[in-house]
Amino acid sequence: MVPEPSALAYVPFVSVQNMMRLVTETGVDAFIARLADYIAADFRRWPEFDKTPRVASHSTDGVIELMPTADAENYGFKYVNGHPRNMRDGYQTVTAFGVLASVATGYPLLLTEMTVLTALRTAATSALAAKYLAPPESQVMAMIGNGAQCEFQAMAFRSICGIRRLRLYDVDPAATLKAERNLTAEGFEVVTCASPEEVVEGAQIITTCTADKQFATILTDNMVGSGVHVNAIGGDCPGKTELHRDILLRSDIFVEYPPQTRIEGECQQLDEDHPVQELWEVVAGLRPGRRDRSQITLFDSVGFAIEDFSALRCVRDAIEGTPYFDRLDLLADPDDPRDLFGMLRRSSGA
Amino acid sequence: MVPEPSALAYVPFVSVQNMMRLVTETGVDAFIARLADYIAADFRRWPEFDKTPRVASHSTDGVIELMPTADAENYGFKYVNGHPRNMRDGYQTVTAFGVLASVATGYPLLLTEMTVLTALRTAATSALAAKYLAPPESQVMAMIGNGAQCEFQAMAFRSICGIRRLRLYDVDPAATLKAERNLTAEGFEVVTCASPEEVVEGAQIITTCTADKQFATILTDNMVGSGVHVNAIGGDCPGKTELHRDILLRSDIFVEYPPQTRIEGECQQLDEDHPVQELWEVVAGLRPGRRDRSQITLFDSVGFAIEDFSALRCVRDAIEGTPYFDRLDLLADPDDPRDLFGMLRRSSGA
Repeated sequence: MVPEPSALAYVPFVSVQNMMRLVTETGVDAFIARLADYIAADFRRWPEFDKTPRVASHSTDGVIELMPTADAENYGFKYVNGHPRNMRDGYQTVTAFGVLASVATGYPLLLTEMTVLTALRTAATSALAAKYLAPPESQVMAMIGNGAQCEFQAMAFRSICGIRRLRLYDVDPAATLKAERNLTAEGFEVVTCASPEEVVEGAQIITTCTADKQFATILTDNMVGSGVHVNAIGGDCPGKTELHRDILLRSDIFVEYPPQTRIEGECQQLDEDHPVQELWEVVAGLRPGRRDRSQITLFDSVGFAIEDFSALRCVRDAIEGTPYFDRLDLLADPDDPRDLFGMLRRSSGA
Repeated sequence: MVPEPSALAYVPFVSVQNMMRLVTETGVDAFIARLADYIAADFRRWPEFDKTPRVASHSTDGVIELMPTADAENYGFKYVNGHPRNMRDGYQTVTAFGVLASVATGYPLLLTEMTVLTALRTAATSALAAKYLAPPESQVMAMIGNGAQCEFQAMAFRSICGIRRLRLYDVDPAATLKAERNLTAEGFEVVTCASPEEVVEGAQIITTCTADKQFATILTDNMVGSGVHVNAIGGDCPGKTELHRDILLRSDIFVEYPPQTRIEGECQQLDEDHPVQELWEVVAGLRPGRRDRSQITLFDSVGFAIEDFSALRCVRDAIEGTPYFDRLDLLADPDDPRDLFGMLRRSSGA
C-alpha cells in the first residue's frame, strides 16, 4: 500500500493539449500579447539574469540543447532539439519542453511542453522588437518562408503592431497554401506571391523564416528598400543564414544576446566587432529604436533563454485557477527527509 | 474538441511512486545489481561518451545543476538541486529528475524521477568500485554519516560485495537509530557506535557519507589502517570534504572524471597534478584495481553524468511491459509538421 505523496511532491505539468486549450481559450492574439508583456518586463531587468550560454550536443542528424537561465527568484531551462530531417519521417524538426524552478529550494514549480510555447514566444519577441524598430505606419508585412512559424509571426504582428495585410512566399507552394488558409481564416488580408522579389513589394516589414540548414540567400540587397524593418527568424545556428551580407552592412542590427547571435545569427557573416545593438536596451529605454524614416532596421533573432524564462513565468501564472494542468508526482517527499530508504520500504508494505 | 495526440506525442513518465513500485517489486538488492551492470557496461565504453561538464547555477541557498551526456544513440541529462537548508523546512536537500532522448530524432524517450534513482545509482557505483578496490575478504563496513544515502550504500555493498556486517556512526544519534531500524529490518548485522574512532574498528571498508557543507574532517589519518578501502561519498562539491589530507596522500585514489573530481571531490585538497586513477579504466580491465593487502584504496565519489545515463537506460528497459509508467503528452505532433498553427486552431474547434 503506497502512501499518497504530499503536496510538496507534486509539480504542475502542462501537456500539449492543455497548452492548446489554455492558448485558444485566452485567444492566440491575447496570449501572445501577454507573452510579449512578460518578455518586455524581463528585458527591462536584463542585467539581473544569470546568462549561461546554451549547452549544445551536436550529432550528424541534429542538435539537442539545454538553455538555462535564472534570476534571484526563479531558475528556468528549456530542452530543445533541432533535427531538420525529422519532417521526412513525420516528426517535428523542433520539439521542446521546459521547467521553472525555485532558486530558494531548487524544487521545480512547473513542467510544460514548449513546442507550441516556443513558437508563440518567438513570434512575441519578433513583434516586440518590431514595435520599437518598424516604421510606425507599417501596414503590410512580407513573409518569406511559410512553415510552422509563419502564422504565429503574423498573429503576433497583428496583436502587437496592428499588421493586417500579409504577402506570402515560400519555395514550396503547398506551405504558402497552408499559411494562406490558416491566416485568411484568422481574418488577415492575404496576397500570395510567386517570387521573393514580388513578395517584398510595398511591404514595410519583411519577415524571413525559412528552414534552410546551409548558408542561403533568401533576401538579396536590391530587395530591401530604405526604411524597411527586416525580421530575420530563420538564421539561428552556425552555417544557417538567410540574408545577403550587404543587407547587414546597410542595416542597424538589433540582437538579443551578442555572444550568441554572432555565432548563430545573420551576424555570423560579419566581423566579430561589427557594431550591434541589444534589443533589451531599446525595450528598457536606454537607447533609441528606429530613429528615422530611411533607416533599415534588422532584428537578427536567434531565440534566447530569457524569452523562454519569461514564457515559463507567463504560463505558471496563466494556469493558476484553471483546469489546464496536471499534477506530476516528480519529487520524492519522505516524511523524514533523511529517511528516503524508509519511504521506499514502506512503499513495498514491508 | 481536441483530437487525441498520436503515439509520437507521448513520452513514458516514471513517477516517484512508480519508481518505488518498480524497485520494490524487483527487489532493492536486485535492482541495484542491475544498475551496477548498466553502469559497468557504460564505463567499459567510456571513450564513446560526449562528456560535457555539468552546468551549475549557484545561489546563496544552494545549487541547481544540469548534467548532460550522450553516446551515438542516446542523449541523457539530469536536473538535480542541492539545498542543504531545505531539510529545516521539510524539503529534500537533493531532488532530481532526468530525461533520456534519441540522438537521431531529438525526441525524449523517458522522463523519470531521479531522487530515488540517484540514491540507488550512487550506491551501485560505490559498490562497483569496491568490487575492484576493497580487500577481497571484506566482511565489515563502517559507515560514518547515517543520512538518506546510508541504507542504499549498505544494500549495494551486500548485493555486490557480500557485506552483511555494518558499524554505524552519526553526529546525530537519531540518524543512526533510523538507519539501524531500516537495516536490521533488511537482515543486516548492525553495531551502532558512539564515535568515529569506535566505528572504524575492525572494518575493511569505511564509507563516509555525511552532509557537512564546509570543509570537515570526519576521518583523521590515524583512523585509517593499512589495507582499508575508503568509500568517500560526502565530499562532492567545492568546499565540501570529509577526509584529512594526509589520508589522501597515503591512498591510491580512484575517481570518476578527474576534471570534475579535482574541483568537487576530496581531491580538491591536493595539487592539480596529484596522480589519480580513473575507475572506468579499472572496470574496463585497462589497469589493476587493488594490488596488495596493505594498499589503502580510496574511491573519491562525486557522481558523474554517465552513471545517470546508465540509470536512465536501465529504467527505460526495466519499465517495458510493466504498469510502472504513465504516458505524458509532452510533444506537439501535428498531422502536418509544418502546420503547428493548424493544430492549435483545430484544438479550438475553429
